[in-house]
Amino acid sequence: MPNQLDFFFFYGSTYTYLTVMRIEQAAARAGVEARWRPFNVREIMLEQNNIPFRDKPVKMSYMWRDVERRANGYGIPFARIPTYPVDPESLGNRVGVLAAMEGWCPEYTKAAYRAWFLEDKPPGDPEHLPSILSALGKDPEAVVSRADSQEIRDTYEAETDVARKMGIFGSPTFAVGDEIFWGDDRLEDALEWCKSHRS
Amino acid sequence: MPNQLDFFFFYGSTYTYLTVMRIEQAAARAGVEARWRPFNVREIMLEQNNIPFRDKPVKMSYMWRDVERRANGYGIPFARIPTYPVDPESLGNRVGVLAAMEGWCPEYTKAAYRAWFLEDKPPGDPEHLPSILSALGKDPEAVVSRADSQEIRDTYEAETDVARKMGIFGSPTFAVGDEIFWGDDRLEDALEWCKSHRS
Repeated sequence: MPNQLDFFFFYGSTYTYLTVMRIEQAAARAGVEARWRPFNVREIMLEQNNIPFRDKPVKMSYMWRDVERRANGYGIPFARIPTYPVDPESLGNRVGVLAAMEGWCPEYTKAAYRAWFLEDKPPGDPEHLPSILSALGKDPEAVVSRADSQEIRDTYEAETDVARKMGIFGSPTFAVGDEIFWGDDRLEDALEWCKSHRS
Repeated sequence: MPNQLDFFFFYGSTYTYLTVMRIEQAAARAGVEARWRPFNVREIMLEQNNIPFRDKPVKMSYMWRDVERRANGYGIPFARIPTYPVDPESLGNRVGVLAAMEGWCPEYTKAAYRAWFLEDKPPGDPEHLPSILSALGKDPEAVVSRADSQEIRDTYEAETDVARKMGIFGSPTFAVGDEIFWGDDRLEDALEWCKSHRS
């Protein structure tokens, strides 16, 4: 131990797109298992008055250019700047919590991010979510009903509280034991930490 | 062209320590000339309500751990968390502007950052600045007098305005033509951009 890295993320984070599209291969190359853990970073950021882009147009404009440039460098498609912010009800996130419990989180998350970044269909949007779920062989009504349940809402809150207690304040964050690494650009550092602290 | 990269930075930025300690070697390896350009990022950040750490203890705590970890990875010494924030009058920065005009900016900046990070002597502190300047063979009184002059204040403001107009909002930022890269962790991307867009 640790051969495992916890990937804490939020559907609605822009840089997380890069991680979602590359973490499986990067973790496999490192011989590390990545555990996908959706959480409500928006709640934590509001608590901490941490508003990176919404009221900061210069920084926001740079962020999109940076995401596009990094995507190009990774060979990840980038179509255009999509709608932002998204998922005000955290529905996309709550579906992610359910998907993580049931073992289909990577597939769902990649599909949700592809729809957002390549077709401008925001995550958690009730208009687009059903077709994403259908394509994964899921029953959209049943999934949304579970995602709206108190059980999943409580799990989402509990995961958020785990992240909060670990000092996590952004998405994506990679946790290896107590050590946390924030940002897609720290994925390699986190995997390296995992490998070099393996028993 | 471009074989040149503009290194915009602020004495008082924490991550900039990493860049100051490694940009000369990294640029030399890439065959790129780095031009050191101190500017007042604090003024720009206040204009943009961009306060990354001062009122955000969780993010601040992570930042110090991240700087320490990255320093370890680069083989750059890190003694302990130093005083922060620093240089309220921008004296350290104005000396940097003068040093850039006269050709001794890298030496001064490395000495100022080493004093800050290894001996907790903040940049621009009137108590510590004279010994840093003396060690560089400069006359402290003459240098501080020039740094306090209207000419240097105007140049500092003009450089800040160049940065502002380029959409720069943080330190360090690397500019290659119109393309800007924010953060020590983007130095390699900026050097690569420089190399791949060379005519």
